[in-house]
Amino acid sequence: MKGLGLSELKPTVLKIGGSVITDKGEELKVRMQAMNRLAEEIRDAGVQNLVVVHGGGSFGHPLAQKYAIREGFKEKVNRVGFSETHHVMTVLNGLFMDALIWRNVPAVSITPSSCIITKNGRIQCFEDAPLRMLLKMGFLPVLYGDAVLDKELGFTILSGDQLVSVLATMFNAERIIIGVDVDGLYDADPKVDKNAKMFKHLTLDELKELQSKLDKSKTYDVTGGMFGKIVELLPATKHGIPVIIVNAAKPGYVQKVLEGKKVKSTLVEKE
Amino acid sequence: MKGLGLSELKPTVLKIGGSVITDKGEELKVRMQAMNRLAEEIRDAGVQNLVVVHGGGSFGHPLAQKYAIREGFKEKVNRVGFSETHHVMTVLNGLFMDALIWRNVPAVSITPSSCIITKNGRIQCFEDAPLRMLLKMGFLPVLYGDAVLDKELGFTILSGDQLVSVLATMFNAERIIIGVDVDGLYDADPKVDKNAKMFKHLTLDELKELQSKLDKSKTYDVTGGMFGKIVELLPATKHGIPVIIVNAAKPGYVQKVLEGKKVKSTLVEKE
Repeated sequence: MKGLGLSELKPTVLKIGGSVITDKGEELKVRMQAMNRLAEEIRDAGVQNLVVVHGGGSFGHPLAQKYAIREGFKEKVNRVGFSETHHVMTVLNGLFMDALIWRNVPAVSITPSSCIITKNGRIQCFEDAPLRMLLKMGFLPVLYGDAVLDKELGFTILSGDQLVSVLATMFNAERIIIGVDVDGLYDADPKVDKNAKMFKHLTLDELKELQSKLDKSKTYDVTGGMFGKIVELLPATKHGIPVIIVNAAKPGYVQKVLEGKKVKSTLVEKE
Repeated sequence: MKGLGLSELKPTVLKIGGSVITDKGEELKVRMQAMNRLAEEIRDAGVQNLVVVHGGGSFGHPLAQKYAIREGFKEKVNRVGFSETHHVMTVLNGLFMDALIWRNVPAVSITPSSCIITKNGRIQCFEDAPLRMLLKMGFLPVLYGDAVLDKELGFTILSGDQLVSVLATMFNAERIIIGVDVDGLYDADPKVDKNAKMFKHLTLDELKELQSKLDKSKTYDVTGGMFGKIVELLPATKHGIPVIIVNAAKPGYVQKVLEGKKVKSTLVEKE
């Protein structure tokens, strides 16, 4: 247990999008079947040195929006709102932990707000000693997007995507796998545009070119929010960590990617 | 929010025993009515600068025992046991958080295993920045006895009582309130011995005298486990922090003590 640097472990960081494990159409509605299936895929892939991060979906997002948690502490009413937003995230996380542990996966959740403080929304302090120990001991640490304390704003929302990027860079991850509810990164939103084309492979340069194109239509993210996620992951990509975007709503896809097998996906690499 | 030391806040640390909020006679059985009542008492007392710590009762204890978590990491099977023990504690904590937040208390749980590492069972690292910020912002931080990582043992059990003592000393607490399922500290177990006499007031010297008497019957704790709790709190008492032991199973007692009113209880003071 001693003397082993985490950079030697080169963990895989797997993000499970909130839209995969919850139904975004209805508040506090979990997709238990998807959660159970993903727990099985994670168990069956048997990847060593894995860190899982999940999103908030219909648990965290509606409350965060209702109480404007991202904007910070303003009045007493949004103080209870912060409590509530964090609490529902622990409930969603608890359901996922249940699915994993029930299947004999030695998973341990790490509560972001208990060990991370942000400054203007960006991670500033991260007490990662428990996370490092868990990985070294062969546990599966699970984190999630959370309502966290912020040195400037009082509190704010820490997205699962920022967490993934920072974790991967801190721990010199081997790869980042982003499990979402579409097949990859498209040039338009595949849920509304039937002609949307999926990218199979993108380099940093190609991504920057794409970004300048997308920036022309600044009012909204034409890729259905996917491009925003990728931008959050750019620091990790620059660090040389490949990012694989895969459909986690389709059975077996996450497991295959974890096992290093090829499935329909978008691969983003430094060059 | 800035520049205010926590020693100026002088928080009250309230421990709620696992035997109060769970039924120790049945595994994973919560006493929801007691939990709801205590949430109301905490809300109605309206104490500023309060930290709550709760025990594990029939959630944490049976699993911790089954997998011998206190003895540390031994084999793969007790690794999943660690996951399970921590997980059920988060479930119990979640029920309590629900009871508090539902009643508009701005409570935020702090996961001990996410910010504390022990060494041979004693707290060695404690990243307390989130806890400090929560208190300064007027939140009610809630912690609990937990399965935590340990630098020597791999992992172990951190009791709520050790947590209370360390928190109170770190934060120079005004007082410690220990809510249990009996009226105070007795010279024998009041649940089995009808002639057991309750102490109303004890100084450190009197406590030491009592300890030497109790040590003569070393095989078990004749006070029904209560004396062991008090010994854990001795460092805080030596620090000058008064400890009030009160019956949290009796409606209104915790609220009255929080409000500074007199109820049947045992007061332990330095001198």
